[in-house]
Amino acid sequence: MADSNKIFTAAAGSNIAFIKYWGRRDDALNLPANSSISMTLDSAVSTRTSVAFSRKLDRDRLYINGEEEQLDGSANEKTVFMKRILDHVRSVAKAKEHVLIVSENSFPSSAGMASSASGAAALVTALDAALGMGMDERGKSILTRQISGSACRSVQGGFVKWNRGVEKDGADSYAVQVADERHWPELMDIIAVVDASKKRVSSSEGHSSTPKTSPLYAARPAFAERGVGVVEKALVARDFQTLAEAIMRDSNNMHATMLDTWKPIMYLNDKSREIMYAVEDLNSRKRGYVAAYTFDAGPNAHLITTREHRKEVLGAIDAVSGISRVIESGVGAGPELLGEAEALIDAAGLGPKRPPRKA
Amino acid sequence: MADSNKIFTAAAGSNIAFIKYWGRRDDALNLPANSSISMTLDSAVSTRTSVAFSRKLDRDRLYINGEEEQLDGSANEKTVFMKRILDHVRSVAKAKEHVLIVSENSFPSSAGMASSASGAAALVTALDAALGMGMDERGKSILTRQISGSACRSVQGGFVKWNRGVEKDGADSYAVQVADERHWPELMDIIAVVDASKKRVSSSEGHSSTPKTSPLYAARPAFAERGVGVVEKALVARDFQTLAEAIMRDSNNMHATMLDTWKPIMYLNDKSREIMYAVEDLNSRKRGYVAAYTFDAGPNAHLITTREHRKEVLGAIDAVSGISRVIESGVGAGPELLGEAEALIDAAGLGPKRPPRKA
Repeated sequence: MADSNKIFTAAAGSNIAFIKYWGRRDDALNLPANSSISMTLDSAVSTRTSVAFSRKLDRDRLYINGEEEQLDGSANEKTVFMKRILDHVRSVAKAKEHVLIVSENSFPSSAGMASSASGAAALVTALDAALGMGMDERGKSILTRQISGSACRSVQGGFVKWNRGVEKDGADSYAVQVADERHWPELMDIIAVVDASKKRVSSSEGHSSTPKTSPLYAARPAFAERGVGVVEKALVARDFQTLAEAIMRDSNNMHATMLDTWKPIMYLNDKSREIMYAVEDLNSRKRGYVAAYTFDAGPNAHLITTREHRKEVLGAIDAVSGISRVIESGVGAGPELLGEAEALIDAAGLGPKRPPRKA
Repeated sequence: MADSNKIFTAAAGSNIAFIKYWGRRDDALNLPANSSISMTLDSAVSTRTSVAFSRKLDRDRLYINGEEEQLDGSANEKTVFMKRILDHVRSVAKAKEHVLIVSENSFPSSAGMASSASGAAALVTALDAALGMGMDERGKSILTRQISGSACRSVQGGFVKWNRGVEKDGADSYAVQVADERHWPELMDIIAVVDASKKRVSSSEGHSSTPKTSPLYAARPAFAERGVGVVEKALVARDFQTLAEAIMRDSNNMHATMLDTWKPIMYLNDKSREIMYAVEDLNSRKRGYVAAYTFDAGPNAHLITTREHRKEVLGAIDAVSGISRVIESGVGAGPELLGEAEALIDAAGLGPKRPPRKA
């Protein structure tokens, strides 16, 4: 069934959560303890993924940023889920061919930024096209969630809510769009990339260990659920004051439950804190919120602001040493199918021997 | 009534909490939300305080480490409480004279370590002697608590529990000895002093703001109360394994509620975290706990260990750069009255004009 002479390419943006997902209620299905809400990022923080099913392939092959990765999870446990998804879609689409997956991020690997959200959303979009499955947004979101939880929010553009759901099989745990990318185009994310040492605890491990070992965590799901309601209303009303405080408090709350985990998980470093203080000071000088900081499972600061305050925010972090790169992103649209290319696997240089740089 | 020609000197050790006090249920009386338990430190981390009441003094005078401090709280809000305590004891003892207080720490001011615990305990001990009040341990502990909460545990030696109490006036909120300093003399505290920037939020402010603004804090008092029970049993049984894990988890739990406070309170820095990881790695190599880290309201690491593992602990933190000083303390005895000196204020050079270096 698979279209064996075609390459299907899709691009998807990452997302930054305003109310975070931290802690699973089901490890195998990536079912979250609480709902979350995010802004989809644009092409500045995106992944482009090409897939081709072909009988000429001797096995499934995966290249991320030019490096071959094993699908047995030896490099990265997300590839285990990817393999599971591949087997699932092949079985649904009755495809027997092996697949070549070539994935490239729009930002350098050295930026130390997670690409699982944009990568998983782009992959599912490309697979859907390649196998002609015609999945709806809900189906794509659920499949993406199973590769990487937060990634399910990247299947939509604009502002996206991932409802925790109540079903045991996760059938109602998927992302829905709250408002599209044209609703509040002035909003932006200024990402201050700071040097990070290797994580001692992966986020996947933390999603499991925090709920089990943090005595404080019990209060988080209800707090986050309320936060999702507050942020959704603030987004609809374009109320930056309410939005900013909710974003910062939720980030701190999540990192607090991480620190309370045994053993403790600590992603913020001195640079993260310096940036937090710089934002506090800027807001204090302006006598109102003009920026909000938020941190995922790492020390990079995401500074949510509006275009009119962009220069002030850049000025505020200018004095912080140790920021290795600044990436600016607006509100992104959902995944985009970039068209299909008629190309033989051999002709495209995508044969099993030579790892390609570009799709 | 005050013995106007005599100088009374007392020394008291600081203390390191194994289960921390963080969060008040009453701001004015320094009544804690939960009980706490600590080890009293020895002369390495202590304060020596001399007091003299004399009609020759034109006003109350306070010198800390050779610097005059105003009792109006302009330098330090603890001096407001000190002034209140002075007025209280003078009224009880029917003394009318002004007082000269000269306080010196055994560790340099530049170490950035809190001296309020040892300072308050030494002051109350010296005042009690100078005014011939004959206070019992409970009375001294309650008075000390009102200057600085955790200080009330320094009125006893060895291992000390501060019961939160239930009375509104704090009459049952004071420290009792669990075991004296001879019970487990092998235990020690290796303090790694790291450079700290000025605190953005004082601990006194945090004791008030955390309970009011942290959604996670609600779970802390019960967790800490259980921890006090666990630590008390472990101390009685000299069970280092149980003690070590309880100490580390409580420290992380307290700092997590700080981070969850609005605005966030962050005392740990990259050096603190490096030391935590060094302790994790050491314990992991030894396949059991040989040391526990704990942090008060600042980045200095207190490493609780036993004398047999002292060298391993020093070795483990040797690789951490940015430790400016290491102070070692054993289990300390309670406050000691160092005797009274017959000395005219004038003769001792303690007149109102020249700030003295030594009592």
